[in-house]
Amino acid sequence: MRYNSRAMTASANEWPSESRARREALSGLETPAVVIDRPILEANIAAGAALARRHKLALRPHIKTHKSPAIAQLQLAAGAAGITASKTDEALVFIEAGIPSVTVAYPLIDRAKIGRLIRSAKAHGTDLRIVADSTDGIAALSDAARMQSHRLPVFLKVDVGLHRCGVDPALPASRDLALALDRSPDLRFAGLLAHAGHAYGAGTPESVRKVAGEERTLLLDFAAGLRKAGLEVPEISVGSTPTVFLNDGFDGLTEARPGNYVFMDMTQLALGVARPEQVALSVLATVVSRNDRYAIIDAGSKVMSSDRGPHGADNLRGFGTVLVLEAPEAQAMTLVRLSEEHGFIEHGGRDLKVGARVRIVPNHACPVANLADRYALIGADGGMEYWPIEARGCVR
Amino acid sequence: MRYNSRAMTASANEWPSESRARREALSGLETPAVVIDRPILEANIAAGAALARRHKLALRPHIKTHKSPAIAQLQLAAGAAGITASKTDEALVFIEAGIPSVTVAYPLIDRAKIGRLIRSAKAHGTDLRIVADSTDGIAALSDAARMQSHRLPVFLKVDVGLHRCGVDPALPASRDLALALDRSPDLRFAGLLAHAGHAYGAGTPESVRKVAGEERTLLLDFAAGLRKAGLEVPEISVGSTPTVFLNDGFDGLTEARPGNYVFMDMTQLALGVARPEQVALSVLATVVSRNDRYAIIDAGSKVMSSDRGPHGADNLRGFGTVLVLEAPEAQAMTLVRLSEEHGFIEHGGRDLKVGARVRIVPNHACPVANLADRYALIGADGGMEYWPIEARGCVR
Repeated sequence: MRYNSRAMTASANEWPSESRARREALSGLETPAVVIDRPILEANIAAGAALARRHKLALRPHIKTHKSPAIAQLQLAAGAAGITASKTDEALVFIEAGIPSVTVAYPLIDRAKIGRLIRSAKAHGTDLRIVADSTDGIAALSDAARMQSHRLPVFLKVDVGLHRCGVDPALPASRDLALALDRSPDLRFAGLLAHAGHAYGAGTPESVRKVAGEERTLLLDFAAGLRKAGLEVPEISVGSTPTVFLNDGFDGLTEARPGNYVFMDMTQLALGVARPEQVALSVLATVVSRNDRYAIIDAGSKVMSSDRGPHGADNLRGFGTVLVLEAPEAQAMTLVRLSEEHGFIEHGGRDLKVGARVRIVPNHACPVANLADRYALIGADGGMEYWPIEARGCVR
Repeated sequence: MRYNSRAMTASANEWPSESRARREALSGLETPAVVIDRPILEANIAAGAALARRHKLALRPHIKTHKSPAIAQLQLAAGAAGITASKTDEALVFIEAGIPSVTVAYPLIDRAKIGRLIRSAKAHGTDLRIVADSTDGIAALSDAARMQSHRLPVFLKVDVGLHRCGVDPALPASRDLALALDRSPDLRFAGLLAHAGHAYGAGTPESVRKVAGEERTLLLDFAAGLRKAGLEVPEISVGSTPTVFLNDGFDGLTEARPGNYVFMDMTQLALGVARPEQVALSVLATVVSRNDRYAIIDAGSKVMSSDRGPHGADNLRGFGTVLVLEAPEAQAMTLVRLSEEHGFIEHGGRDLKVGARVRIVPNHACPVANLADRYALIGADGGMEYWPIEARGCVR
């Protein structure tokens, strides 16, 4: 499915222009650089916090997007109750950085990983929560918790349409699994947790709202069945930036876990979730070569990633939108092709000389942060700061 | 263009089985892990060295693939004259590790980067060579060399059909650029350097040979024109694993810079460049969840990358070939879809339970190494060693 062209057209030429001080600061950076616009980052964090407050939701943003404890601290200062992480070693970075509540929203089945998390959480006084979607997962979590005499809060992961992880809420076996989880003396049933990642393929704001509505109905119906079976369902947690920002309400839900909203990207623009002035992350690059057709920049798949969109979405052209640093308000171009260290911009005869600087707004911001060692944060006045991306990688 | 189905069929079910000791060693690793089969790695390195010796070529393998000084040392021990790198900070890792000759095959135009390279190369006694394809590049290299009273060897980068970087050998301006390079008192004209990356889209072994032949003809004709204009052309350097391993000869060429050959991957198999028993790199993963259609593994785009092939090639299905650890010789499956931390395998009803282990042979190995912090090297007897990937990332 293609994204609706209206949203694309509306967003194509509304990129904010830059002050001279900021242009000069960006001209001085070595490229490629992953640049964060700090005022936009802070506005996005504030908007997420305000939304959660307005709907009386606990906010535990997913840090897979930024992988930075410093950005997590900004989210906590704005009102987040904790954070959500995907993988063990990434979660450990945030536990060790003193984040008070960490949810590992991944069906861990490796007792060694779970044990490492519990040990670190106990040492740092962290409220650690994990998810399960199988008897193997419950057994592994239970064993690891028992080994450390810890009673671990565990969510049942529910599949609300992405068909990745999670139990099918329509099956009686899923209710039985929740009851089994609750019966484990080493675990505490924390409630239901879902991720409507298929919203990324929904195409239009209306379709995203529909996905969010279906997710809520599935979760509330499933919770009602569990309550009827005598089980208390303390929390119902949903994620995904599109469904958290585009929906018809949160009645009955208790928590939101958006991730991408801190940065936003072309995917969120195409879905109608964000406007150009809300995009905080871009990759600064330099034209290093030029031929008849392409301006070649020093940003390839090893900084942009080859993602065309989240969850393998393939709806947007190329890999990102190209803004000329000296004239961001001019018609944007497309980053049409990537080698590992080169990006191809179809210049269409435009004046992009060797040495010219561009900013690329990626189709998908999350994998970009994972490829860099630090962010260059630019302030409203052009002041630069560098923040390490401590939890990037974590594959060993 | 699709790869020829004959090559694909020939390679589909010929994966070597594993000894019990090696299966057990791999069962004990935490996943995801980037695993290198050390005997295969060493055989691939030996094959590259033998090819270079046979054809009297200097071998300077591209280390973008492995990013490991320890693997570069194996290449040198087998006879390589030095290494090739893409970016400044990656090259610096190898200069500082004592590699005696480092070619930066990238049209650098940033005086600070060039200066850093020259400074480090002088400090370590490294034979540093860089490329240029524009007057801006020649000016930047010349300025940076002069600042440090260094005479820098510089190749003219030639476009032989990828249409990325490099001068068009058909244009008189390209000859003039070579003459300008030679006239710079701070530079030494090292010769011609090309990369026939479009061979990756060639589809069949025959088409790869054709690309290699065209590259050689273009370079030899261009060199003849330069010699006629009074310019000595000391070296003619070609790269790309497909064209170095599939061609009709190297007469007149002096150097080869293959990168991927140390690991090989599904792309090389599909092109007919490698056979299954020559694939040294795989990603070890565990099934963490399962639904009606998919077995979900703990290897997503943040370890596999989203590359479907080099240079944006999109010829292979999915992102990699899935071998079940306990039965690698069984019919392989496909990794059809990726989220950031999840991979989707279409199980087709096969017995892939939660906890089962698989090895994924990626479509493209190079971006995988860039996403991990270390390799797990497995020996013939199942002994494991861990080698850091020192030059991964290098985006700051």
